[in-house]
Amino acid sequence: MRFKPSYAPGPTDVRENVRLALAKKTNNTDFDKEFIQYYHEVCQKMGKVMGTTNEVLLLAGEGILALEAACASLTEPGDRVLVLDNGIYGEGFKDFVRMYGGEPVVLSFDYQKSIPVEEVRDFLEKDHDFKYATFVHCDTPTAILNDVSQLSPLLKEYGILTVVDSVAGMVGEPIDVDKNQIDICCGGTQKAISAPVGLAIVSISDDAKKSMNNRKTPIASYYANLQIFNGYIEKGTLPYTMPASTVEALEVALDNILNEGQKAVYDRHAKIAQAVRKSVQDYGLSLFVESGASNTVTAVIIPSEIGALRLQNHIQETYNLYIATSLAQYEDVILRIGHMGENAFTDKVLSVLTVIDNGLRDLGFEGKGNLGQLFLDALREEN
Amino acid sequence: MRFKPSYAPGPTDVRENVRLALAKKTNNTDFDKEFIQYYHEVCQKMGKVMGTTNEVLLLAGEGILALEAACASLTEPGDRVLVLDNGIYGEGFKDFVRMYGGEPVVLSFDYQKSIPVEEVRDFLEKDHDFKYATFVHCDTPTAILNDVSQLSPLLKEYGILTVVDSVAGMVGEPIDVDKNQIDICCGGTQKAISAPVGLAIVSISDDAKKSMNNRKTPIASYYANLQIFNGYIEKGTLPYTMPASTVEALEVALDNILNEGQKAVYDRHAKIAQAVRKSVQDYGLSLFVESGASNTVTAVIIPSEIGALRLQNHIQETYNLYIATSLAQYEDVILRIGHMGENAFTDKVLSVLTVIDNGLRDLGFEGKGNLGQLFLDALREEN
Amino acid sequence: MRFKPSYAPGPTDVRENVRLALAKKTNNTDFDKEFIQYYHEVCQKMGKVMGTTNEVLLLAGEGILALEAACASLTEPGDRVLVLDNGIYGEGFKDFVRMYGGEPVVLSFDYQKSIPVEEVRDFLEKDHDFKYATFVHCDTPTAILNDVSQLSPLLKEYGILTVVDSVAGMVGEPIDVDKNQIDICCGGTQKAISAPVGLAIVSISDDAKKSMNNRKTPIASYYANLQIFNGYIEKGTLPYTMPASTVEALEVALDNILNEGQKAVYDRHAKIAQAVRKSVQDYGLSLFVESGASNTVTAVIIPSEIGALRLQNHIQETYNLYIATSLAQYEDVILRIGHMGENAFTDKVLSVLTVIDNGLRDLGFEGKGNLGQLFLDALREEN
Amino acid sequence: MRFKPSYAPGPTDVRENVRLALAKKTNNTDFDKEFIQYYHEVCQKMGKVMGTTNEVLLLAGEGILALEAACASLTEPGDRVLVLDNGIYGEGFKDFVRMYGGEPVVLSFDYQKSIPVEEVRDFLEKDHDFKYATFVHCDTPTAILNDVSQLSPLLKEYGILTVVDSVAGMVGEPIDVDKNQIDICCGGTQKAISAPVGLAIVSISDDAKKSMNNRKTPIASYYANLQIFNGYIEKGTLPYTMPASTVEALEVALDNILNEGQKAVYDRHAKIAQAVRKSVQDYGLSLFVESGASNTVTAVIIPSEIGALRLQNHIQETYNLYIATSLAQYEDVILRIGHMGENAFTDKVLSVLTVIDNGLRDLGFEGKGNLGQLFLDALREEN
Repeated sequence: MRFKPSYAPGPTDVRENVRLALAKKTNNTDFDKEFIQYYHEVCQKMGKVMGTTNEVLLLAGEGILALEAACASLTEPGDRVLVLDNGIYGEGFKDFVRMYGGEPVVLSFDYQKSIPVEEVRDFLEKDHDFKYATFVHCDTPTAILNDVSQLSPLLKEYGILTVVDSVAGMVGEPIDVDKNQIDICCGGTQKAISAPVGLAIVSISDDAKKSMNNRKTPIASYYANLQIFNGYIEKGTLPYTMPASTVEALEVALDNILNEGQKAVYDRHAKIAQAVRKSVQDYGLSLFVESGASNTVTAVIIPSEIGALRLQNHIQETYNLYIATSLAQYEDVILRIGHMGENAFTDKVLSVLTVIDNGLRDLGFEGKGNLGQLFLDALREEN
Repeated sequence: MRFKPSYAPGPTDVRENVRLALAKKTNNTDFDKEFIQYYHEVCQKMGKVMGTTNEVLLLAGEGILALEAACASLTEPGDRVLVLDNGIYGEGFKDFVRMYGGEPVVLSFDYQKSIPVEEVRDFLEKDHDFKYATFVHCDTPTAILNDVSQLSPLLKEYGILTVVDSVAGMVGEPIDVDKNQIDICCGGTQKAISAPVGLAIVSISDDAKKSMNNRKTPIASYYANLQIFNGYIEKGTLPYTMPASTVEALEVALDNILNEGQKAVYDRHAKIAQAVRKSVQDYGLSLFVESGASNTVTAVIIPSEIGALRLQNHIQETYNLYIATSLAQYEDVILRIGHMGENAFTDKVLSVLTVIDNGLRDLGFEGKGNLGQLFLDALREEN
Repeated sequence: MRFKPSYAPGPTDVRENVRLALAKKTNNTDFDKEFIQYYHEVCQKMGKVMGTTNEVLLLAGEGILALEAACASLTEPGDRVLVLDNGIYGEGFKDFVRMYGGEPVVLSFDYQKSIPVEEVRDFLEKDHDFKYATFVHCDTPTAILNDVSQLSPLLKEYGILTVVDSVAGMVGEPIDVDKNQIDICCGGTQKAISAPVGLAIVSISDDAKKSMNNRKTPIASYYANLQIFNGYIEKGTLPYTMPASTVEALEVALDNILNEGQKAVYDRHAKIAQAVRKSVQDYGLSLFVESGASNTVTAVIIPSEIGALRLQNHIQETYNLYIATSLAQYEDVILRIGHMGENAFTDKVLSVLTVIDNGLRDLGFEGKGNLGQLFLDALREEN
Repeated sequence: MRFKPSYAPGPTDVRENVRLALAKKTNNTDFDKEFIQYYHEVCQKMGKVMGTTNEVLLLAGEGILALEAACASLTEPGDRVLVLDNGIYGEGFKDFVRMYGGEPVVLSFDYQKSIPVEEVRDFLEKDHDFKYATFVHCDTPTAILNDVSQLSPLLKEYGILTVVDSVAGMVGEPIDVDKNQIDICCGGTQKAISAPVGLAIVSISDDAKKSMNNRKTPIASYYANLQIFNGYIEKGTLPYTMPASTVEALEVALDNILNEGQKAVYDRHAKIAQAVRKSVQDYGLSLFVESGASNTVTAVIIPSEIGALRLQNHIQETYNLYIATSLAQYEDVILRIGHMGENAFTDKVLSVLTVIDNGLRDLGFEGKGNLGQLFLDALREEN
């Protein structure tokens, strides 16, 4: 397969030292104490990056497994679960809840804005009988960011556990699991962490553990059951064979982040994202998000006479470059520029913006100036 | 982590060209048609190796996910399922059946012998009202091989679908899915295929698909739901982000197998396995299996005054080499020598046998001759 | 060391499959017949790319070793050698000639133009008593290209052997060793071949071999003595340990070239080079070369109030990108944009031109338009 | 090419982290200050491993280039040079001396013993008018070790510069350049350092530099001229393009050595070598060396009715493993077992000895016991 650079909001570029770590020979992973200790250390390093001393687990699967595992492990038949919805993934949680016998209560908001904290508070005053609540940190299809630092503590005030999907948020945006009192925080390796696909991440608070331990019914899954990891260190064995190469690669990616410094990584994302948003607007296009744009991805509205899908196809065919549109109702409306993790660097964003500029011109759009140059100019103004 | 060669029955050594394939940059995997086409081609190549034109899926997870997905996708509440049991994994299927609401009927046999086909026939004459049956091709903890070519057709005679766990069998032993009429055949990448851990393999027959399509209740899982892949080519999207590196590495591993020739690979396994079994016995130790030994792994009984666990520890500490014991009741009784896939080569087996010989001597066992040399002599006799 | 993309005229980017070939385990290289056969095959593949069935040798060293080896092996004390000079490397040959006891006669021409074939013809009519003549295919410091197809046959008419330095020419520009009757053609792996540094390349005609065999004095060097390779296949041994990894990597790079097709590679270089030259001029800068610009590198005159060195430094510090200036008297005058081998791709050239544009603006230069966009526009016009 | 493990005395196995370093993208090497600084640091690290603060240079070539460069740079026409000869490489120095116009005086000794220091002293008392002397640390074709700690200081007493070929010695045996007052110490990357082939190593004392600076005639070579590196840091440029990948790989190999600890590395070589020598003799074969065996390689006399070449061939064909015989008059007499650098590990030596044992048996030799086991037993006795 010919390599085609991708500027989708994940999977992101994987840095050379991370890719080369994948090529190393690996030790037996099933019963070898050294590996089990190593796995534990990488989990803790992951926790450090997430801002938590809670137990962190790496599941052998894609990020969505983390979401299912959280719901599978917490939900018992009949449990009421509050699903906060201002985006496609946000709403999607209701399916996992239902699948495991829970009763989702979906609270929906404007998809072009962050979840309004005050409206949630008003709702909770009237009804707060929920075992747990779910929401998404960054809902990628629309590039919206929700305010974890307010939502999660608010829910905890009412004794409601929180499950947060930060797959496309963590590392690009602060998540601070402990400070924000997130009970189960879900992540994936292939977004802003810029490690290979293949590990789903969950952190589990003591409250969440207590809730699982107090279940009256067994968890109706093995692969999505977080309790199969219980006591793995003492037992000296993991519940299944771990992808050791991916664990080693993840560690290198985490070291890259820690070596750069998490503050520096957040700043890099913020600078790039602001310049992208400014340049796109200076150029004459509109953003989908009205308030609360994520620094990991930007959703740009493509005029209907051009169409996001047509632009995407044209760019693939003419410039051998992959850009994502959105999902569902937004598929032909929104073009998404991913700028998270290893993709949040000036040269890469310059490349993709130059291509988008040329692609749009090819299809008849008249931008105001050169999009790449507008981006560089916007970056320069920030300093 | 210091590298420690492992002769467990998986994960096996991954050949250099497969490991280096992991280090390549990968394309976007979510919506890119080229990748989806590529994924499909690797699935078909996997099918070729398994001897089937059935649909083959690669799930982003460890081999056990294949087993769970088969049971999750087939089982509806109340379904009767026949669980053929002559080993630890064989018996374990009952848990998956129960988890998804089925009623497992466990038919147990001597753990030191292959499943006796005639006894199964006798049983079926009396009771054959089962939606599907499960059994294991090679049950690794005890190194037993079951005769797929007889069991699966027999069950099909009675209209019973078959789910076969060939995780530790396929590639090392013929599986011939189509010839043997296996409805769902499960595999993993890290055993005799000698690709990295991280993909679970299932082939799905038309009968199995029909059965899933005729369900009256939804499948109670997303990650273990085989139907989420339905129509992925037409839709132009996979249900979640695939570990593209692992898919590429798997393809290289499959090419290695096809280039060597499947017949040659089976012969290599058979020769090595026979020489291992002969040399171990000539040396003065006994095999666990009385009839039906698998060519992928050998289970050796370690005298109780030495103990398999003590020998394993001694060898790890003194010779920096990992050998597996067994599980559960056999943990301290059986030492397992894995000789599957990339580990089924003379030099590697010679290494591990020489170390086992020295390890046993260190602990006071008096073998008859030099175990490594006995192995080489046995190999020579075979030719 | 932090990675810094380089757009110097070599070493060029090395494609991923070539770099990964370097990571493979290698066989013993000294006496192993399989390796010696392999080395020979790679030499022949190199010859295919150079358009010759002459013997080709890969010497374990940098490209300059090829030049020295040619002169060391041909020159005997007192030999008259014609040195055609229209560039820094062209003139430099006189030092090698002198070092090995020869008497160089330097014929110098305008450095901004290709060597004028008619003037050489006029000179030869009067004086053609030379053992051999030297000239450079592409003299990188000034980006000038000489017409091998005329010069070499002309010299052969007079019975003069030709030594051609095509280190920075071959693969990017046709060299056609046999058609052009080049006696010793010199190359390096790290230019348009885009393999790792570490092998010097020479092809040796029968006439050149005869000349070496007829020497009256021994060659005054071992490492630069081409005769130490005589009969290496029959002897079953090479004169010293070859860098096996680099030989394997070179083979992959040659396969990349042959798979793309040599004609397609030349066209790619031509298209990119023309667009670079046009866009630089449209932007308001001048080229150094008046006639005979090479398609592998472009020499741009930087206004003295800015200075090539200052621009180079500014770009390194501000944009983390390496661009070469020139050598000697041109060091602060010429900026060189390398676009050979793996660097001759639109996206890479777009990157470097965009950075140069911004760098020049930062230092007060007012370009006419956006240099990157001018390049894309020029490319588009070509089609 | 099929991979064939080699137990020749170099090139040795290259550890995985060193090989993977080769696969990294590299920076421009010619004029980039960061690379030049990096090159300098790796040279210094190389010096640390050699026990010297003298300038160390890495030349882009095979080890033999170091020897030629030392002689080319020191020798002026008519210079008398003392060549100490107790092995094939030892004697070979005379050719380099002559090639550059010097007058070699060859002092030859028994090839089965270390150079007798007292005899050298006696000779020097009578004749010590030499510009420099040459000798070999470990002469690999016969596996002999010379006592650098005595020879070099003795020569310096008489004001004679010393050129020591430690290509096959350093890292496996202490070289201590400064303590032993070696003026030019020569090495290669592919022996006990276990880095890839491709860099020749020289350390140059101030006395040697003075001698070069005081030359009356120019050095008759470019590639073998050590003075072309003069002032490379100040100039900000190296004399030719360095193989950056190999420099990076060398650094990783040096880090491996320093991390293990040089004392530990010497001990590892000593233990392995002693056990090899003991086991070979216990088995019933004789060593070539009577006194002064090197710990990096062992020369075993193969009975003439078998023949070293026949044994070598048989082992290659039957066991796919490469073992070296010797050179010249010893080619069919001596089998050499390399156990230096990454090859000086128990499992690897066990492998090769087991194969040699079986190979000898196949050809009719009756060894006393199992050679691999004798080696393990000998190792055990050492502790």
